[in-house]
Amino acid sequence: MRPDERAPSEMRQITIEKNYLMHPEGSVLVSFGDTKVICTASVEERVPPFMRGQGKGWITAEYAMLPRATGQRTIRESSKGKVSGRTMEIQRLIGRALRAVVDLDSLGERTVWIDCDVIQADGGTRTASISGAFAAMALAIQKVTVEKELPVFPVKDFLAAVSAGINAEGQPILDLNYAEDSTADVDMNIVMTGSGEFVELQGTGEEASFTHQELLDMLQIGQEGIGRIIQEQKSILGEELTAKITGEQS
Amino acid sequence: MRPDERAPSEMRQITIEKNYLMHPEGSVLVSFGDTKVICTASVEERVPPFMRGQGKGWITAEYAMLPRATGQRTIRESSKGKVSGRTMEIQRLIGRALRAVVDLDSLGERTVWIDCDVIQADGGTRTASISGAFAAMALAIQKVTVEKELPVFPVKDFLAAVSAGINAEGQPILDLNYAEDSTADVDMNIVMTGSGEFVELQGTGEEASFTHQELLDMLQIGQEGIGRIIQEQKSILGEELTAKITGEQS
Amino acid sequence: MRPDERAPSEMRQITIEKNYLMHPEGSVLVSFGDTKVICTASVEERVPPFMRGQGKGWITAEYAMLPRATGQRTIRESSKGKVSGRTMEIQRLIGRALRAVVDLDSLGERTVWIDCDVIQADGGTRTASISGAFAAMALAIQKVTVEKELPVFPVKDFLAAVSAGINAEGQPILDLNYAEDSTADVDMNIVMTGSGEFVELQGTGEEASFTHQELLDMLQIGQEGIGRIIQEQKSILGEELTAKITGEQS
Amino acid sequence: MRPDERAPSEMRQITIEKNYLMHPEGSVLVSFGDTKVICTASVEERVPPFMRGQGKGWITAEYAMLPRATGQRTIRESSKGKVSGRTMEIQRLIGRALRAVVDLDSLGERTVWIDCDVIQADGGTRTASISGAFAAMALAIQKVTVEKELPVFPVKDFLAAVSAGINAEGQPILDLNYAEDSTADVDMNIVMTGSGEFVELQGTGEEASFTHQELLDMLQIGQEGIGRIIQEQKSILGEELTAKITGEQS
Amino acid sequence: MRPDERAPSEMRQITIEKNYLMHPEGSVLVSFGDTKVICTASVEERVPPFMRGQGKGWITAEYAMLPRATGQRTIRESSKGKVSGRTMEIQRLIGRALRAVVDLDSLGERTVWIDCDVIQADGGTRTASISGAFAAMALAIQKVTVEKELPVFPVKDFLAAVSAGINAEGQPILDLNYAEDSTADVDMNIVMTGSGEFVELQGTGEEASFTHQELLDMLQIGQEGIGRIIQEQKSILGEELTAKITGEQS
Amino acid sequence: MRPDERAPSEMRQITIEKNYLMHPEGSVLVSFGDTKVICTASVEERVPPFMRGQGKGWITAEYAMLPRATGQRTIRESSKGKVSGRTMEIQRLIGRALRAVVDLDSLGERTVWIDCDVIQADGGTRTASISGAFAAMALAIQKVTVEKELPVFPVKDFLAAVSAGINAEGQPILDLNYAEDSTADVDMNIVMTGSGEFVELQGTGEEASFTHQELLDMLQIGQEGIGRIIQEQKSILGEELTAKITGEQS
Repeated sequence: MRPDERAPSEMRQITIEKNYLMHPEGSVLVSFGDTKVICTASVEERVPPFMRGQGKGWITAEYAMLPRATGQRTIRESSKGKVSGRTMEIQRLIGRALRAVVDLDSLGERTVWIDCDVIQADGGTRTASISGAFAAMALAIQKVTVEKELPVFPVKDFLAAVSAGINAEGQPILDLNYAEDSTADVDMNIVMTGSGEFVELQGTGEEASFTHQELLDMLQIGQEGIGRIIQEQKSILGEELTAKITGEQS
Repeated sequence: MRPDERAPSEMRQITIEKNYLMHPEGSVLVSFGDTKVICTASVEERVPPFMRGQGKGWITAEYAMLPRATGQRTIRESSKGKVSGRTMEIQRLIGRALRAVVDLDSLGERTVWIDCDVIQADGGTRTASISGAFAAMALAIQKVTVEKELPVFPVKDFLAAVSAGINAEGQPILDLNYAEDSTADVDMNIVMTGSGEFVELQGTGEEASFTHQELLDMLQIGQEGIGRIIQEQKSILGEELTAKITGEQS
Repeated sequence: MRPDERAPSEMRQITIEKNYLMHPEGSVLVSFGDTKVICTASVEERVPPFMRGQGKGWITAEYAMLPRATGQRTIRESSKGKVSGRTMEIQRLIGRALRAVVDLDSLGERTVWIDCDVIQADGGTRTASISGAFAAMALAIQKVTVEKELPVFPVKDFLAAVSAGINAEGQPILDLNYAEDSTADVDMNIVMTGSGEFVELQGTGEEASFTHQELLDMLQIGQEGIGRIIQEQKSILGEELTAKITGEQS
Repeated sequence: MRPDERAPSEMRQITIEKNYLMHPEGSVLVSFGDTKVICTASVEERVPPFMRGQGKGWITAEYAMLPRATGQRTIRESSKGKVSGRTMEIQRLIGRALRAVVDLDSLGERTVWIDCDVIQADGGTRTASISGAFAAMALAIQKVTVEKELPVFPVKDFLAAVSAGINAEGQPILDLNYAEDSTADVDMNIVMTGSGEFVELQGTGEEASFTHQELLDMLQIGQEGIGRIIQEQKSILGEELTAKITGEQS
Repeated sequence: MRPDERAPSEMRQITIEKNYLMHPEGSVLVSFGDTKVICTASVEERVPPFMRGQGKGWITAEYAMLPRATGQRTIRESSKGKVSGRTMEIQRLIGRALRAVVDLDSLGERTVWIDCDVIQADGGTRTASISGAFAAMALAIQKVTVEKELPVFPVKDFLAAVSAGINAEGQPILDLNYAEDSTADVDMNIVMTGSGEFVELQGTGEEASFTHQELLDMLQIGQEGIGRIIQEQKSILGEELTAKITGEQS
Repeated sequence: MRPDERAPSEMRQITIEKNYLMHPEGSVLVSFGDTKVICTASVEERVPPFMRGQGKGWITAEYAMLPRATGQRTIRESSKGKVSGRTMEIQRLIGRALRAVVDLDSLGERTVWIDCDVIQADGGTRTASISGAFAAMALAIQKVTVEKELPVFPVKDFLAAVSAGINAEGQPILDLNYAEDSTADVDMNIVMTGSGEFVELQGTGEEASFTHQELLDMLQIGQEGIGRIIQEQKSILGEELTAKITGEQS
């Protein structure tokens, strides 16, 4: 039995609150249980220097936690004067994952900045961030598509992320909360598209290793979780935007 | 007439949502109109090196804005690797203001960390931060008073902050929003206690100067605004905690 | 009785030594008693990026203390690799104050850099800095007005700063030295123009608060102090430059 | 056909030169084709603050490239004053991977510092680093085991890493060189133990995604590559040390 | 003929103003012509971590220039967030040179901090700094010798520094000013003791080289210059302190 | 007798391995006994901002040590976030020395970046770096001379560096290893051209001083050492390139 009485392959409650803030082109407040992340997407009409003049767009992400998102207060990275390795890893992951489902040529020479700010953490902040950031990005790109009259809608598929792991009893579990994450032997983050392909797969034995069969088990329940998150994304983005993303008639 | 049709000495709608987050000892989400700030208070059972061994407590504050709290995305201070002068000024102000109404001896050798994170900005972020931080701090100190069985309740008075200014027409106005703040000739931040004394007064002519009479006019409407904010603080903190702070029987 | 036997509203001896250094366009050595600050004004024929192309000038200030300006040696900010919050606050204040008496349009697209380097500190370094920096700036702008044949003299009024406070006996005192500053309950910095208007007002209760009457008392003696500093500025700048600043015939 | 005429599941030539430097407790020069990395292992008789007093050891890694390890000179991270996200990711990966095959309790309260310095880069620098670092670490721990008379040999299994990918023709390939890495659609780093379990799995679609079958194909050839690297490790570490690691009689 | 009409081996006017500041244990304002440096010596009753428990003292130096010590304003190193290579070289040189004439064992476990702040620069700032710093240090150590009743006076010899060079006409010249320094082919800094031995010798061909004979010529005139500076040091330090340093009866 | 049984004026074994790495335009692995440095020269087709538009080239150097080049592991400067004073001094010295034998006008508007990375240290890393960097630079400039069809070969003379010192017995010794360097009273680095002129001379008494005669003795043996290093440089660069550098027919 899991600490919060979920079944092994049961997700926590997922909610995505659309247009959470007034200024950004796209924004959501995403919750995976008690993990809450504000995700915003901002459109800037230029690209970084290394991409200029190619007619292509760019998507980049930043990630942070409020100092008291966690049980113990963590020191602000602005006070320390540097960004931690963990933060860098996560923000590189978010950006890379989102770029996999966007046609950067159709986006044109502009940047979508993704900001994921965790206001409350209970495990799975990176998977909640990716899943929420996709929704914020889709909203922002919808807006830019209309305003700049882009001929092709640049978002090509849905995208979501979920964690899976092997707990101390050797059982595969889905969407680990903080208590489970701290004690699991194996932790895997799975990022998949709406059409069921992998975009990122990061599995780590925490001072441990895992077998080929355990890998297959985690992928199996992960895939189910992805499906449920994408269902929630579709529900809040609405039929019309969903149809644009999947390329089907609405 | 003001942009949002308020009377010159009319505050925006103020709300304070208590216990907004699960981890901190005290937390609120404070709104002054569209300005929204998450204020948390964290208790740490030690003080900074320069205060050790004196048996006194300490209160310190940090302030930040989400990148997209503003109309244009601002670069994260963690990415720039340094905290801006504006941020430093504000967090020093918040800490200093709160310390003025706390008996640091009664608090004992522990630190209350205040974090004010602006999630949406529309002018007055520092006054909303101070007003919300007071409530979060009172909640955290209430908790520590019970848990550590402090003999005396360390918070000695209410505290709130409000801005006043002289607009381009020369009229004194209260609680400026962003549009007003950008065009005002004079901008004053007033921090006062529940008993009507000043704790901080910061008035600035923006490439302009102001007369003695204009100062008095701003103080007058500022004092009214402070009263209304403290009324809201009392309402959410409840009668018992209010009585402890004011030193009266509940 | 004050530690150095001054009357409550008596200033320390003020001296301003003109053209103290050979390289800067304007420079002074200003003393408020034992507080000594080298103030220089440097003219650069361009403005910061955010102001380009508007035909307006800019004035910006930097402030520092020699490590042994103080009783205890302080660590250099260059060694620490960052500028403290206190330094940032002061240099922002100096720049803002000076800009209030300069017509930036008449100055044209150039920057006046103000540098205030405290070589000996005994309280009131920020007010001595502003008062000395005004003189250095006036000298530099006089030079640029001649060399660049500016049609209008850009400095529009005199400007000086002084501190006032309430000492532990509850008495309002003017121009606090270090011993007084460390023990005062209230500390106020007042920046005023030659025509008697406020440019900045920063009053702080140091773990204390102050009443409306105490505020008025401090403003009263502050105003007297400002008058005496401006008299000294006029004396060293000379009649001709004074007349240009006040807009009167010499 | 691959650029260097290898078969799809063929590794580049692997060499590991033992005791390459005179000072470190363990050191090798590892080559995967033209990729050359100096790996050293240094033993320090203490652990980081967060681990003190637990009687456990720690293993941590740092990674860097010489500026001209690459075709274009890259700027030194010491000159930039910060470590890039890519570097942080790699050094965290190396440390985590090595810790998975060491019994930190048996190691005792000491740290093994791993340094991987790439002197020439042609793709696969992180997999060469992990594979070489394992050998350097085994040598250093062998030395410490003798000198400190550790009752149990702390290294519990062999460990190696290899990359696999899907090239633009959709074919799974092993041990990508730089030319292949730049054009592959999918890139996967696989870290495995001598007993055939996974320690880390990091697969990334580069602006692309990959199917479940492609994943299985990459894992298959990756497993073969791991076997060949471990064979080389055993050959240079010698029978006696190999037996200690595998727990068999030599 | 030199720009300021000096003879080839003629020094600029040297002045050393004793006890220039009120707070430091030792301080001077030293001038080599128009080059002016405030040198202070501060005594701290502890040594850096790497020297603790040895009963020996330490002497360390920091060097900086006011932004407008130079013809063009230079950016503050505190604003840039790092100390330049030139500054580091100079402050390491000053500290090393002073340590050569102090018996660190006799000094006892305390640090003398030397601060050299150039307020006006016209060439030779490092030689003026060393020559002035010696005087400030002697004053501070005299004070500590009395207060702590040191049995042996720790300063063992006089120390001064001067520059010599070969100008574009191939002539050896002494104590170069800025105009000469910018055009000289060779620049040499010579640090010598009162008894005529070398402590530091740093000669540099500026995109040029120099012969053995040119070296001997520069050493010759340098030695003369050193003599004149030490004469000035003796004159301001007084007979008694001079006798203590030279170890003779006064 | 010296620790490694060398005669006082005997060099350690010197080897220079040409074209050590595949990517740089010029590279060597230089050894002075157990001191081993990888020196690379990279050509960039532009110059730093302060030199643009003058048609002249530039040569600049960076220096670093692998963490475990030394007996005790040293912390990476990239981890500390800043470059030490020692490193800055050395890299400024290398760049300055090399520029003295190159005609920057003939080089044209391009930069040669020198990187010296010490992989094993046993004293004399800066002199080995300069001596090896000269060879790497000559190789790179030879390449650019051919590819860009430069009319004049820009390298005008050979250049090498060696250390000399006075050991604790008062004897002058050449090419100090680490054990000697740590105990010597005087340490001198001598950089000379193939035609026997000085480019840099840096002599330091380590808490000691040295006489004129000791200086002459060190210069004498230093000159002999320089000759032997240049002989090795000529041998590996070959007759044709040697003739270009010395300006003689091959």
